[in-house]
Amino acid sequence: MLATGAAGSTQPGQGAAFSLILGIGDDAAVVRAPDGRVVATSDMLIEGTHFRREWSAARDIGHKAAARNLADIAAMGALPTALLVCFAGPGETSVDWVLDLARGIAEECATAGAAVAGGDTSYAQAIMVSATALGDLAGRDPVTRSGARPGDVIAVAGSLGAAAAGLALLAAGPSAGPLPADVRAELIGAHRRPKPPYPAGAQAAALGATSMIDVSDGLVADLGHLAAASGVRMEVASRRLAAEPLCPVTSLRAAAEALGRTGWRDWPASGGDDHALAATFRRAVVLPERWAVIGEVTDGGGVVIDGSPWTAGTAEASGGWEHFRS
Amino acid sequence: MLATGAAGSTQPGQGAAFSLILGIGDDAAVVRAPDGRVVATSDMLIEGTHFRREWSAARDIGHKAAARNLADIAAMGALPTALLVCFAGPGETSVDWVLDLARGIAEECATAGAAVAGGDTSYAQAIMVSATALGDLAGRDPVTRSGARPGDVIAVAGSLGAAAAGLALLAAGPSAGPLPADVRAELIGAHRRPKPPYPAGAQAAALGATSMIDVSDGLVADLGHLAAASGVRMEVASRRLAAEPLCPVTSLRAAAEALGRTGWRDWPASGGDDHALAATFRRAVVLPERWAVIGEVTDGGGVVIDGSPWTAGTAEASGGWEHFRS
Repeated sequence: MLATGAAGSTQPGQGAAFSLILGIGDDAAVVRAPDGRVVATSDMLIEGTHFRREWSAARDIGHKAAARNLADIAAMGALPTALLVCFAGPGETSVDWVLDLARGIAEECATAGAAVAGGDTSYAQAIMVSATALGDLAGRDPVTRSGARPGDVIAVAGSLGAAAAGLALLAAGPSAGPLPADVRAELIGAHRRPKPPYPAGAQAAALGATSMIDVSDGLVADLGHLAAASGVRMEVASRRLAAEPLCPVTSLRAAAEALGRTGWRDWPASGGDDHALAATFRRAVVLPERWAVIGEVTDGGGVVIDGSPWTAGTAEASGGWEHFRS
Repeated sequence: MLATGAAGSTQPGQGAAFSLILGIGDDAAVVRAPDGRVVATSDMLIEGTHFRREWSAARDIGHKAAARNLADIAAMGALPTALLVCFAGPGETSVDWVLDLARGIAEECATAGAAVAGGDTSYAQAIMVSATALGDLAGRDPVTRSGARPGDVIAVAGSLGAAAAGLALLAAGPSAGPLPADVRAELIGAHRRPKPPYPAGAQAAALGATSMIDVSDGLVADLGHLAAASGVRMEVASRRLAAEPLCPVTSLRAAAEALGRTGWRDWPASGGDDHALAATFRRAVVLPERWAVIGEVTDGGGVVIDGSPWTAGTAEASGGWEHFRS
């Protein structure tokens, strides 16, 4: 019955057309769950709280609404199979805007290998997009937050820091200093359309990841969730975290300079919304190149960087890491 | 693998504790899908659009948000297994209000045999509850809207008309005339907490229902969806529709009188939100008492009552059915 991916597969499933047995148009959709279990997660994007229409186009918002949920599926070690979307907005919202939103959602689902399986539309004063993603475990156990053990390595797939820097650039607006156009586009693009490394989730599960989380609150905060759930300490080495290609150091440094900030390292450490995946693995596991090792799991609690306890700042802070010695 | 209900079972599954493998607290939940397929549906309730806080308590809104989605699962012939809920509201919303909402959601899930599997909370100017329900087909085919055939009978499980009458009473406020307290409570209660006949959905599937729908837009509108999807005509007999126990005739008549309305029959015909189930069955099927036959499927299109084409009115209209001869 493991039709969407043999155990040990590191590729997404056979795609949307395979997942969807019955789509939009009835009381409910029917989605394949060949594993006999279904992974499910919901969250929402609300105008003014999660996005601003002057900063993100409808298509970007669609990408992000889908990505946030699909990344949570990947973070369980599962293959995304389907997405259901509820949209509410003011009566004056243009049809083009809504169609662009739907286009962004569909594009992101296609990237993740998931089908758009259903949804609902309604009236509300502010635009709200709520989504539920479903996924298939392909015969593997879900990778929870609680399995990290001392001796494990901590590794990250995806990218860290760019989304927070892009948001800082948007917030600064014209007050930001000059910045090469491609750097600006790279960072703002990362904020508008995060690129979760979807296949890395099932890959990590196949490699026996002991814990995993979608990095949405910021790396330190999310490693803190793993530390708390697993009863361990997460020790991160700054030279591994703040290193290409995991972290776009050159671009972040340029953005910090344009913004008159003294530091850029709080972006990869505590900036949210990149939707990288952070996981822990047994030390003996040979990790594919996509997984960058950034530290190790030890006895204790909390998150330390270069041996110092870390109090999560925000990307708005100008300080960077005090304990950074580079 | 059909562990939540043997094929042909007419009872809900083994309940929430069985359905939920991994609940709230990780990136996503893991829910049993023993059938190898999962039924999924989403919709939302928005303050001002779908409810008013002065008319419904938080607990009622929780019941309704869950019921709307769980009823859609039943309408596919499936057993509800899980519900994910996103809540957004203003910062000044009291914790008690939110806890009461959660209590209503949990109570309705328990009634349907589903687990509360996850969710998200956020800030928004108006209260918004978005929910996704999951269900298991227990080895049966989903009952879609498109399988009705001429010669089938049309039957309804649940109740029709009370929710719309209750809404009319709330809308009229003090301007309504006297009404026995128990009648008022019955009708307003039906608006605040619809009671979908959850087990009837899987029962209908087991009986070979050819089409089925959750009655949320009003019976005639929803039968119209079956008629359109199936390419048939739905012929309803008013004496069967406007009859106890399917329709609380005595209470509706009293409410119409209190409201100074000349008719009450548009409530069961076009009033929404009762969340009854309407289905079609082969004529030879012996239907359990819960399923009230109200008409038959014929060649043609649309919905007719007593042979006359029906244009859906609203519960706000005062006319009733012109073609009613009673």
